[in-house]
Parts: sequence; structure tokens; C-alpha cells
Amino acid sequence: MRRDALTVVLISPRNPLNIGAAARALSNFGFDDLRVVNPYEKAFHEAVSAVGGAAVLRAARSFDSVAEAVADCHTVVGTTAIGNRHLEHPLHGLEAAGGLIRGAPGKTALLFGSEKFGLSREDIAHCHWLTRIPTGDQTPSMNLGQAVAVTLYELIRDPGQPLPAPDRRKPVSGSDAEQLTVMLLDVLEASGYTNRIVATSTGRKVRQFVRRMALTARDAPLLLGILRQILWKIRQGG
Amino acid sequence: MRRDALTVVLISPRNPLNIGAAARALSNFGFDDLRVVNPYEKAFHEAVSAVGGAAVLRAARSFDSVAEAVADCHTVVGTTAIGNRHLEHPLHGLEAAGGLIRGAPGKTALLFGSEKFGLSREDIAHCHWLTRIPTGDQTPSMNLGQAVAVTLYELIRDPGQPLPAPDRRKPVSGSDAEQLTVMLLDVLEASGYTNRIVATSTGRKVRQFVRRMALTARDAPLLLGILRQILWKIRQGG
Repeated sequence: MRRDALTVVLISPRNPLNIGAAARALSNFGFDDLRVVNPYEKAFHEAVSAVGGAAVLRAARSFDSVAEAVADCHTVVGTTAIGNRHLEHPLHGLEAAGGLIRGAPGKTALLFGSEKFGLSREDIAHCHWLTRIPTGDQTPSMNLGQAVAVTLYELIRDPGQPLPAPDRRKPVSGSDAEQLTVMLLDVLEASGYTNRIVATSTGRKVRQFVRRMALTARDAPLLLGILRQILWKIRQGG
Repeated sequence: MRRDALTVVLISPRNPLNIGAAARALSNFGFDDLRVVNPYEKAFHEAVSAVGGAAVLRAARSFDSVAEAVADCHTVVGTTAIGNRHLEHPLHGLEAAGGLIRGAPGKTALLFGSEKFGLSREDIAHCHWLTRIPTGDQTPSMNLGQAVAVTLYELIRDPGQPLPAPDRRKPVSGSDAEQLTVMLLDVLEASGYTNRIVATSTGRKVRQFVRRMALTARDAPLLLGILRQILWKIRQGG
């Protein structure tokens, strides 16, 4: 696959050694875009010596939120060790995920959760779908650096098989999806909808809903225009 | 493949953390036979806590020579990061090696060399053939624990056609889609959006848009509730 079409995002990694190991895996398989959201150790760049991954580690960027980290990505894929917890998201085995990611237009972000807790429900709300490494039931959870290595290997290995025809419509970018989310939340609040249900879960639900809609880049301005108009109308009338 | 038909042999590993990581990878993918030849730290069993791999690590056996470590194995496969140094041995890419090992009768030993030097020529003399993980030329050498994880993944991955799992989510029904379309058009009209563009084409565009969104049956009531609330708010205010 095109090596600049993938970014690896580590969310709240606790152990700088694992960030280094992830950087090395990227370098091993020819990728270079590593992003970190809220690492436990801010100075992870300098602290860790990643044999063979030093350049990737030095260039790694730190973000305060998942939304910012995936803003320029068109597809967001979450990795999980647990198969059936998140029924609202499509779940693909890693073998199938490899084909889907290789065929995806634009840039794809691969999200890895923290060593201890994996991805949170809030993190997963940013995802279009999830993938799972086929580990056994006895020890499903992998070491972070090893999980990154296995996933990237699946992406670059010779697939040998004809791929399903990719969907050529350009999906909405991460920043557009987030802008839509925020504006829809504004509309929900202005219309009095948000008050009716628990407010904290609304953000997550709406975020997930917007990703699930499979919007194209063409849909974004249309929908933003609609929401802007609704907001204007409600505020004018209220 | 049969999980008792494989043994992983680490030769002169220097870092106990890597032995622990290898143990965890075996456990992740359902294997249990780890052997170590001349480790730097004799007490590696006790020294390293391998999350999720503790049982494999405790059961790991230590040998003084490669010959003893592979005595009960029928095929010995060496792993190498360098492609053309050992011309006297057949070299197979990892994808092909997976098929060969799965098809091999008896027990197969997978040899991994030390972190710093890899397998020596003496170690390789015990091998029937070699395999190479398809890393890039820029950073060919992998971390030991990551190399073990990637190799074992290739052995257990589903070699069959990697088709994505069918999306089991129930799509929205035609009548619900139409109800959404009509209500969205009502909102657009009430908010003054429709006036700004040619009204006749709006119906078609919105209808198309609602179908393109890939809504699920669960999304329909959520979205209808939102639209109903917006409509109520606009009409109340106007």
C-alpha cells in the first residue's frame, strides 16, 4: 500500500518503551507517520531510544485529542482485543481489514488504545469500523508494540489475492466529520433536544453517528450548510 | 495449524524483556513451547513478568546448545533480516513460509537469533531453510519480541480468501427512509433553506442523500426524533 496513506495513532500510551517499539515497527515496514494523543510522558521523543525507529520517533507528533490527531484522515480504524463489545461498529478480522485499508481512498488512521485499557468508548466514537487481531481467547490482549507490528505486517504483506473493488467515492475528512459533529451538537442544544437525554453521552453518540453515516467529501458542505441555516433560524426565532 | 507442532527457540537472547515479550506472543496465538539457548540471564523465568505470557515463560526450557534445543524437531526454520547472505540455504518470504510450516509433518522449530547479531552461521547450519519477514531495506532488523509476534501471526492467520465480514447491521427500511426524507424537507423549508436553491431539485437531492447515508434501522428513530425536535423549535420560535 501507499506508505503515506497511513498514520498510526497511539492513544494515552503509558510506557515510552512501547512508543519506541511502535516507531520501530513503522520504520521496519516503511511507514513514517506516528501520532500520540496524551502520552504519559511528554518528553517521549527524547527519552526513548528506538533502535531503527529513531527518525520516526523524532518526527512523531503529539496531540491533545483524538479529533485533532485524525483531522486529516478519511477513514479511522480502531483496534480492539475484544470482539463483541461494540456492536454498533462493524468489526473485521485483521486479514479482511488489510484489504479494506489498502483499498481505502485518502488517508487512514489506525488507532491503538492504552496498554491497560485499550480504546475507550469515546475513542471508538471517532472510528468508522474496528479490527481485531485473531488472538486466542486465553490471552486475547497483545503488547502494544507487538500489536502495531502485526497490524502493519498485515498491511504490507503480499496479499496474493485479488482485492475487492475499492469504493472510489472520497470519504469525508476527519476535520469535516468533527466540524459536522460539533455543529450538529449545537443544533441539538439550540433546539432543546440535548436536555432531554443525558448530555455527556450525546456527544459520543452523535460523533459515532456522523462517522457511521459514510458521508462523502461532497456531502459535507451540503450538510454543513443545512445545519448552519437551521441554527440561524432557531437563534433568530428564539 | 496444530499448536503443539511448533516450538520457538530464542538463541542467546540478551534482554529478559524480549524473552517475556516472546512468551506473551506465543500465548496470544495459542502456542506454548518456548525454548531458550544460552540466555544472558540464567534466571530469566523469575526475573521477567510477562503479562499474559507468564505460564509460557514459567514452562520455558533452557538449553546449552542449538542441537539439544531442536533434538525432537523434524524441521528447523531460521529467521533472518538479511536476504542474500546465506546463499546455501533456501530462503522463503514469510507468507510462503507460513504455508510450508503449516504443511510440515512432525514438529517444526522456529529459530530467532540474538537481538544484536541475529543467527550465526553455526546456528544456521542447523536449519533446513530460512525465512524473512518482508521488512524494508531502510530498517530491515526487527525487535525480537515483535519479530516473534509477526511470525506467529502469519502461522495462525486465516490463509483463505480475506473477505470482509458482511455488515450485519440492519439497514433502514424504505418507508423509514422516506419518512426521514419528508421530515428533513419540512425542516429545510421551515428553516428557510429550501428557498435559497431551486426547490424542485431539493427533494431529489435530499432523497438521494438520505439513501446514501447508509443509515441503520436503529438510526432512524434517533434521527426522526432530532428532526421532530428541530421542527418544533423552529415553528415555536417563528
